[in-house]
Amino acid sequence: MACGEFELIERYFKNRQEPRFDVVKTIGDDCALLAPAAEQLVAISTDTLVSGVHFFEDMPADSLGFKALAANLSDLAAMGADPSWVSLALTLPEIDEPWLELFSSGFFKAADYYGIELVGGDVTKGPLSITLTVQGQVPKDLQLTRDNARIGDWICVTGNLGDAALALESLYGRADIPSDDLEYLINRLYHPTPRLHAGQVLRKIASAAIDLSDGLASDLAHIAKQSGCKAVVDIDSLPLSDQLLRNTDTQQAIKLALTGGEDYELCFTVSPSALGSVESALAHTNTSFACIGQMNSGEGIEFRQNNQVVDIDYRGFAHF
Amino acid sequence: MACGEFELIERYFKNRQEPRFDVVKTIGDDCALLAPAAEQLVAISTDTLVSGVHFFEDMPADSLGFKALAANLSDLAAMGADPSWVSLALTLPEIDEPWLELFSSGFFKAADYYGIELVGGDVTKGPLSITLTVQGQVPKDLQLTRDNARIGDWICVTGNLGDAALALESLYGRADIPSDDLEYLINRLYHPTPRLHAGQVLRKIASAAIDLSDGLASDLAHIAKQSGCKAVVDIDSLPLSDQLLRNTDTQQAIKLALTGGEDYELCFTVSPSALGSVESALAHTNTSFACIGQMNSGEGIEFRQNNQVVDIDYRGFAHF
Repeated sequence: MACGEFELIERYFKNRQEPRFDVVKTIGDDCALLAPAAEQLVAISTDTLVSGVHFFEDMPADSLGFKALAANLSDLAAMGADPSWVSLALTLPEIDEPWLELFSSGFFKAADYYGIELVGGDVTKGPLSITLTVQGQVPKDLQLTRDNARIGDWICVTGNLGDAALALESLYGRADIPSDDLEYLINRLYHPTPRLHAGQVLRKIASAAIDLSDGLASDLAHIAKQSGCKAVVDIDSLPLSDQLLRNTDTQQAIKLALTGGEDYELCFTVSPSALGSVESALAHTNTSFACIGQMNSGEGIEFRQNNQVVDIDYRGFAHF
Repeated sequence: MACGEFELIERYFKNRQEPRFDVVKTIGDDCALLAPAAEQLVAISTDTLVSGVHFFEDMPADSLGFKALAANLSDLAAMGADPSWVSLALTLPEIDEPWLELFSSGFFKAADYYGIELVGGDVTKGPLSITLTVQGQVPKDLQLTRDNARIGDWICVTGNLGDAALALESLYGRADIPSDDLEYLINRLYHPTPRLHAGQVLRKIASAAIDLSDGLASDLAHIAKQSGCKAVVDIDSLPLSDQLLRNTDTQQAIKLALTGGEDYELCFTVSPSALGSVESALAHTNTSFACIGQMNSGEGIEFRQNNQVVDIDYRGFAHF
């Protein structure tokens, strides 16, 4: 059955969620209308995923829907924001209803789980791509930013690094991995966990934060640059999963952890005196973390192993 | 010189505007941070423009930048909202610096003129497309929506209809138009005027509003459907420019005005007793308008000429 933009939206995207109390007008007017809470800042982030560039054309559509939102929520996590509202701009080469059914089910799985409401967007014809704009709220003066790390602060990361990158290696046919480990790794690539609760409890404790989308080496360099410090990272402290270690040599594991991207973990800095608070706060949210280095005077990022500076080609995902 | 995403953003999109007082954090962190005013609703709208679908590949980039934003601002106008913040997701096949220079100059021309600040976005590699998410603010309970028209209300439109559609006909090589008239028409297509002030002064007066992006017949049908009325339009009352009338026969002029789209005028409804208020309010904003019909009981949209119902194929721009 032929189906236009408005019908598509009605069928796959409208009335799929419990409405939030702060959405005055949702899909179906010229704009959505939102009622931010008093004394909160609105945090907003936009991400585009293009088929063949950011994801494989044959990526399962439910995973794509889930991941597109989860990856964008990770930006809210890095500001310490609570997720609130999301807009979806979906460009499709043709109407493929089974694909849309899967895509929307994955999208709403993440949306419902993280309590964010789809309030609008656009469906257009063209080469497959997805642009999401997520919004969250964070109490005034408690936002986490990239520019407030201080010399002497510890550098920490949540979870493990490099898993998603190894999954990608496998999908490119460059790694041969037993199925149990592969299942774990692919799940880390396709269903990342935005560290929203961790970001929220770190609001009053961490000095700076960023989410790891392009790779630690590239992302941490933003904190260093914007805070006017040098980040010194101890390679041997990087948190690596058994599944990563079992299927790589040490050299490759480190490279994937530093440059692979798509981990969607948080990297944050914290003054040494607040490290105990981080431990108990993150324990409450059931989030593992590791201290991997320290901010120093200088600029850029430096890698050390056995207290020696090591040279690593640390560029993350290059967008062009 | 090779140039990555971050450099592109620095060069063409960052620090190009006077910062708004309510932008706490702009481009360069995981999220932008915005401080909505107390007692305001945030209005948000997203539009995608795909090359070859929504605009010609060779459309001048400055016009494209201007129009992309102006068209999206028109959605804020239709809610009666003041423009505040915009995010830009730009997907480019390659880095073309002269194109970017032109595109950004057109974009910021509109942004500065209408007082909206670019606060973030994404630049990715892929087939050319532009997704904008604009946000504005409107005082609580004063928003204009599509669902509040009443039987007996007048139906009005600002400006003239059909000009952009005739410009498109010419670009498709289907109309031969003298250069003076063509200049006016192309300007209407490439540099539409979002009716922001008109929308704002209509807040307390109009009962419903929508902006004309897909064509009057299609857009007004949304008001009718969502308000539970029938829209009855008098064909002879449609406001048509001399440039349109000079270069079409009456039949074509009406068709373009009803179905052409891209006018970005406002269509609104108003109770007969408030028509005087509309006249003086719109005179203050220097906006011409015309009454073109009345809401009646029933559903859908009906066209009349000499008080006879006429049959018109009134589908607007079909998105698929």
